[in-house]
Amino acid sequence: MRITDIREARVSIASDIANAYISFARMDVSVLALYTDARIDGRQVVGYGFNSNGRYAQSGLLRERFLPRLREAAPASLLDDSGDNLDPFRLWDVLMANEKPGGHGERSVAVGIIDMAVWDIVAKVENRPLAELLAERYGDGVADPRVAVYAAGGYYYPDKQTSALQEEMRDYLGMGYTCTKMKIGGVPLAEDLARVEAAIEVVGEAGRLAVDANGRFDLRTALAFGEGLAPYGVRWYEEAGDPLDYALQQQLGEHYSAPMATGENLFSHHDVRNLLRYGGMRPDRDILQMDPVLGYGLVEYLRMLDELRRHGWSPRRCIPHGGHQFALQIAAGLKLGGNESYPRVFAPFGGFADSTPVENGQVALPAMPGIGFEDKRELMAVFDRHLSL
Amino acid sequence: MRITDIREARVSIASDIANAYISFARMDVSVLALYTDARIDGRQVVGYGFNSNGRYAQSGLLRERFLPRLREAAPASLLDDSGDNLDPFRLWDVLMANEKPGGHGERSVAVGIIDMAVWDIVAKVENRPLAELLAERYGDGVADPRVAVYAAGGYYYPDKQTSALQEEMRDYLGMGYTCTKMKIGGVPLAEDLARVEAAIEVVGEAGRLAVDANGRFDLRTALAFGEGLAPYGVRWYEEAGDPLDYALQQQLGEHYSAPMATGENLFSHHDVRNLLRYGGMRPDRDILQMDPVLGYGLVEYLRMLDELRRHGWSPRRCIPHGGHQFALQIAAGLKLGGNESYPRVFAPFGGFADSTPVENGQVALPAMPGIGFEDKRELMAVFDRHLSL
Repeated sequence: MRITDIREARVSIASDIANAYISFARMDVSVLALYTDARIDGRQVVGYGFNSNGRYAQSGLLRERFLPRLREAAPASLLDDSGDNLDPFRLWDVLMANEKPGGHGERSVAVGIIDMAVWDIVAKVENRPLAELLAERYGDGVADPRVAVYAAGGYYYPDKQTSALQEEMRDYLGMGYTCTKMKIGGVPLAEDLARVEAAIEVVGEAGRLAVDANGRFDLRTALAFGEGLAPYGVRWYEEAGDPLDYALQQQLGEHYSAPMATGENLFSHHDVRNLLRYGGMRPDRDILQMDPVLGYGLVEYLRMLDELRRHGWSPRRCIPHGGHQFALQIAAGLKLGGNESYPRVFAPFGGFADSTPVENGQVALPAMPGIGFEDKRELMAVFDRHLSL
Repeated sequence: MRITDIREARVSIASDIANAYISFARMDVSVLALYTDARIDGRQVVGYGFNSNGRYAQSGLLRERFLPRLREAAPASLLDDSGDNLDPFRLWDVLMANEKPGGHGERSVAVGIIDMAVWDIVAKVENRPLAELLAERYGDGVADPRVAVYAAGGYYYPDKQTSALQEEMRDYLGMGYTCTKMKIGGVPLAEDLARVEAAIEVVGEAGRLAVDANGRFDLRTALAFGEGLAPYGVRWYEEAGDPLDYALQQQLGEHYSAPMATGENLFSHHDVRNLLRYGGMRPDRDILQMDPVLGYGLVEYLRMLDELRRHGWSPRRCIPHGGHQFALQIAAGLKLGGNESYPRVFAPFGGFADSTPVENGQVALPAMPGIGFEDKRELMAVFDRHLSL
């Protein structure tokens, strides 16, 4: 078995949203197809990959470093012992040859894009859904049939803060979501608390609403918002400070006893280990949100989960950033605590299979080999348009 | 004043060396020229930048994200209050707009390349050497006239380990160096100690020889090498473990009392702050080696130095990775403890001005405006070949 062709392109996912840190008006992603000479049920096996939103396309790094390494590798060096399928770990080592330690950003996205396509191939060659394959190889043998998802949004609306926010939350409930997340930190605390109250009014209870500061606060502001939020009991208080400011996170945890969440901007198991060592995160309540694409793909995400176990954490405490089918398959197969979702933005990369709508806050997995892209018509149309041979 | 043209190219700096972690057979760098409409002594002011070795060219990120932001910025947004010169900090903010926090790698190199060219322009417009300008703006007003440099090398030579290593060290002494550095960790401890002894024999005393493990060791190996090295009293023991494994560094420091060094793979002031918080580095003896190009340029390096001061460190404890004229100007202007040098590799990007040979382990700075590239004929030839309008 071998990779026969590689196609890569850069695609816009611009949207008019903004979080407390950046605008998404110029956001783009890389899309990738790995063609193989394997055939299942008479059809050529092709694996697809793309990156989660927030970190831009990686066409340059893919073309300059990582795809050349893949093309130049001896085909056998990428295969498992049977020789009939790719080995994601061996392939990862080929990609990361002659890369220095540290500096985990951008290249971690480029490698993650390739890794997604590789796992799509591996599951397709095995002729089964990726979640099943992961449950058997790395989990307890049985994948979760459904994954809890929550609607991440809760944007700012100049001039009509609470009414438009409530409308947005109502929209999510109408789409089948039961839990949502909203931005905080873009306006003064009192205004944000009024927004939080307005959102709780719609979703029904504070435990169904998470809040996200997108890494914006210094320690004093993080503590002030924590004190303001405490009476409500929101589901979690996300990324209060800079993702690498473990001391801030640790101090916040000493003053804010309700659940905290962070991790979407940590892209290696070394960084995650530092969060666990120094961040004061509490394994009985807090949430870890590492993204299995942005951080060197699932191969590295499995190393992160190993670090978690060594530090006394259950995978159920993980709810990955990303909002796409790959993260959903991983959440089901490795029995994570759920998955993020971005309704109405980042389409068609965000969202799940056409045949599996959100129902009662959960999404089922399509019964087909691989990650399930072939059950997402608009996404396949993008792949066909940009990645055809 | 405005930037009138931008040219960028990718240039090989392949060499047949290898450290304990990677081979440099495919290493390349990006070179950049920023043309301006400013004139000094009748000549157009052009700023040049490139990245330090070890992290590859960044043409993709430059072309896809950072140069477009520079081209699209309102010219006035890049200038200082006088309007006659660039403001490196304002320009940096333009480059980093809509970039999320965390994930400090690759883009930190791309931004550092631009930052080098910007400081070259700023000093040229001021018609003075960069070191002088830095001393006045951020230092004590007077730049060091000479900077201590050491020869980083000490490679492995299959079949003739000690004799070829001694030959290499002799070569460095003949070039004017008094201090050198050698690789360790590529062979078992006993063999490495024999190499260390052979090198000390040539350089004269252990205090003139540093050793570098390039981040390769686990804790047990780091401690074992520390115990083996202790009797010699080498100048420093560099990057024993993974650059992000602060707990390993801290544990090593509790067992190895002679100087340790690390930091070349930390690319943001957030990462450096974590090293200072958690790594157990000792401000009375240890060395910090952050690279002022690979880590978002001098703008971010100044933030790193602020973190150092807050933690009780002197800039004299810093000896940057990089080995080029930009790092040398920074070392002189901000009164750092010295600068790395890579004799006979990475030319013409490594090394200093043609008129300032290494003498008695020190290098002087050329008396000309900017970083001094115009006094390095082979480097200017590369710029002319790849970056001419």
